[in-house]
Amino acid sequence: MYSIFESEVRIRPDDIDVNNHVHSSRYMDYVLAARYDQMENNYKMSMKEFLEKNLTWVISDVHLSFKRELKLEDKIVTVRTQIAEVGAAQARVNFWILKKENGKEAATGYFLYTLVSTVSGRPVRIPPEIVEKYSI
Amino acid sequence: MYSIFESEVRIRPDDIDVNNHVHSSRYMDYVLAARYDQMENNYKMSMKEFLEKNLTWVISDVHLSFKRELKLEDKIVTVRTQIAEVGAAQARVNFWILKKENGKEAATGYFLYTLVSTVSGRPVRIPPEIVEKYSI
Amino acid sequence: MYSIFESEVRIRPDDIDVNNHVHSSRYMDYVLAARYDQMENNYKMSMKEFLEKNLTWVISDVHLSFKRELKLEDKIVTVRTQIAEVGAAQARVNFWILKKENGKEAATGYFLYTLVSTVSGRPVRIPPEIVEKYSI
Amino acid sequence: MYSIFESEVRIRPDDIDVNNHVHSSRYMDYVLAARYDQMENNYKMSMKEFLEKNLTWVISDVHLSFKRELKLEDKIVTVRTQIAEVGAAQARVNFWILKKENGKEAATGYFLYTLVSTVSGRPVRIPPEIVEKYSI
Repeated sequence: MYSIFESEVRIRPDDIDVNNHVHSSRYMDYVLAARYDQMENNYKMSMKEFLEKNLTWVISDVHLSFKRELKLEDKIVTVRTQIAEVGAAQARVNFWILKKENGKEAATGYFLYTLVSTVSGRPVRIPPEIVEKYSI
Repeated sequence: MYSIFESEVRIRPDDIDVNNHVHSSRYMDYVLAARYDQMENNYKMSMKEFLEKNLTWVISDVHLSFKRELKLEDKIVTVRTQIAEVGAAQARVNFWILKKENGKEAATGYFLYTLVSTVSGRPVRIPPEIVEKYSI
Repeated sequence: MYSIFESEVRIRPDDIDVNNHVHSSRYMDYVLAARYDQMENNYKMSMKEFLEKNLTWVISDVHLSFKRELKLEDKIVTVRTQIAEVGAAQARVNFWILKKENGKEAATGYFLYTLVSTVSGRPVRIPPEIVEKYSI
Repeated sequence: MYSIFESEVRIRPDDIDVNNHVHSSRYMDYVLAARYDQMENNYKMSMKEFLEKNLTWVISDVHLSFKRELKLEDKIVTVRTQIAEVGAAQARVNFWILKKENGKEAATGYFLYTLVSTVSGRPVRIPPEIVEKYSI
């Protein structure tokens, strides 16, 4: 079983759309912001360190289920993520976006990431030391 | 069988991210831009007309599969959409994002939309005249 | 002399552009986010309360001077704002965007806001009770 | 006297903000999109070619005057730009954002650009061949 980590993201005025709600694509940005934060602070290997090893995580698939609208007044969302599965070159990460104030779910879903060599541009097997870092 | 419609979207410098590619969440924005365009020009009922009837389409689910990176040099994407299924209050729309220059797929996926009353905030049965407009 | 207030804004991955820096237009978004925050928490009259009185602040002029690039690694910016001048229907607000870690200036400038009636769409004289709230 | 060039930019749903208008910072993005387009098509030296010579244009100052709100229904804006002045390491570019449909001004202003070496990170004198390209 993998750990669940969480980050807070503050809703910005420029995230709000024509319907007075957080624009749907910004939910993805909130998860990506949380992932950057958690890579560095929880998994102890920041995106920068991956790039220094000529590796990068590329998004292959995204699934988002929207549960509740977010407004500017909701102010802060809590983004929880948990690794669901680590394969040869891919890792699936589940996420939950909650309103911080009351813990209600705004969206859930997953991201399927593929580890890619920045040199060849091709998927690479996740090295054992990274599998280990991600096994917490 | 439902018709396939297509719209062109020009890639903007502010869509490009830290990896020199179109940021993943912008793919959603491209599909949404194409939908607005096609609602008005192909289905002959713009989002504005829905709002005037106290109705709006809310996104319930999104699935995106990324196939190829997009760069600023790709300039223009062609976004094709096709209704896959119309239910009581929901419509599923498949999409394909292609590089205009060579027709290569950059991403595919679907949006599940729910018709919602802007008065009650609750899902409503899709009226027959809208089902008909969407049956082309 | 008007008070200087400050807010923190976290840099998000989707703010980063093709040059690996915060995209220039995001600096405006950071100031706008800080203003919303300070209207509510420092001036004790949120944008929502203005709208409830059929008033809104519209941006008439913006000036931005860029001093230093911001990167994702800078993580958090401090946005300071200070009212410079309150006229009949307009208020000029100076701002400073600083890197939180070392206090170095990333940008400075001002926003000229006009108070507008949401009913008539026209500028209105700033009511005395608002002038007072802004005189701290 | 320098030439005026123009580009069209389509307003996207994700550009619209909480007030149902194009968000103020997006005006900057529209000008930047027009500049990329005009560098390539009018000045015949794309940003990519600058980067290949280890040069880049950095924005030093921006001034925006907002004249009229833009809505999604305005669909397309025309962005005109004209070089106002070319100095040792800097170029000032005036811009006008117009509603395509009726030619009415939505915003005007200028960008002050500085030519910077991507190797040293410092301003460099604009080479004569670039001054010439920009003298049309």
